[in-house]
Amino acid sequence: MSTETKTIFTKIIERELPAEFLYEDEFCIVIRDINPQASVHLLLIPRKPIARLVDSDEHDHQLLGHLMLVAGNIAKEMGVGDAFRLVINNGEGAGQTVPHLHFHILAEHSETHKFSETNL
Amino acid sequence: MSTETKTIFTKIIERELPAEFLYEDEFCIVIRDINPQASVHLLLIPRKPIARLVDSDEHDHQLLGHLMLVAGNIAKEMGVGDAFRLVINNGEGAGQTVPHLHFHILAEHSETHKFSETNL
Repeated sequence: MSTETKTIFTKIIERELPAEFLYEDEFCIVIRDINPQASVHLLLIPRKPIARLVDSDEHDHQLLGHLMLVAGNIAKEMGVGDAFRLVINNGEGAGQTVPHLHFHILAEHSETHKFSETNL
Repeated sequence: MSTETKTIFTKIIERELPAEFLYEDEFCIVIRDINPQASVHLLLIPRKPIARLVDSDEHDHQLLGHLMLVAGNIAKEMGVGDAFRLVINNGEGAGQTVPHLHFHILAEHSETHKFSETNL
């Protein structure tokens, strides 16, 4: 991929930009969001630069399932397996600021539950 | 599954409770949320009664990937493929009110973008 078309996430994945990998495997990485919206705010990012969820197809079936399993596992490892929110913003109009598929994993360590069914 | 342990979603899936299926296949259904938080608010629910995302395991790898693909496809079919949010609340402390895994698919038809990276 040319430098011009690399997203910030690809640059992080390729170690051109610094970021601590909280987890990584053949298919994805997990980093902290640099502008956290909750006590725990992680980004789970596939190495494959799929722009948006809607741009994935049957070739990504395995990858998408893997990402979901990793999301649960990393939440457990971070001690928030019992209460976390997973968010995927698809498209600029839905707040997706980087055109490279990423899952937000959000959780509060406190008992003041920030999340509710009426605040999606 | 005994009646006592069925969630409202299993009752809907088994047609014991009424709901319009906007989509269904061997593995999942899509219905409208009865308490919508956005112009479009769908629930994508696997037939398999996995309680929470963290309760899924490698046996659910295929299913989870399928759900992600269906989420994108149903958003496109509903005309919101360019701007929607997918949310999974994991656990009561994260606002999960029904202990049966479900994906919220939310979108606004208007240009007033409700969703942003700073409102997760």
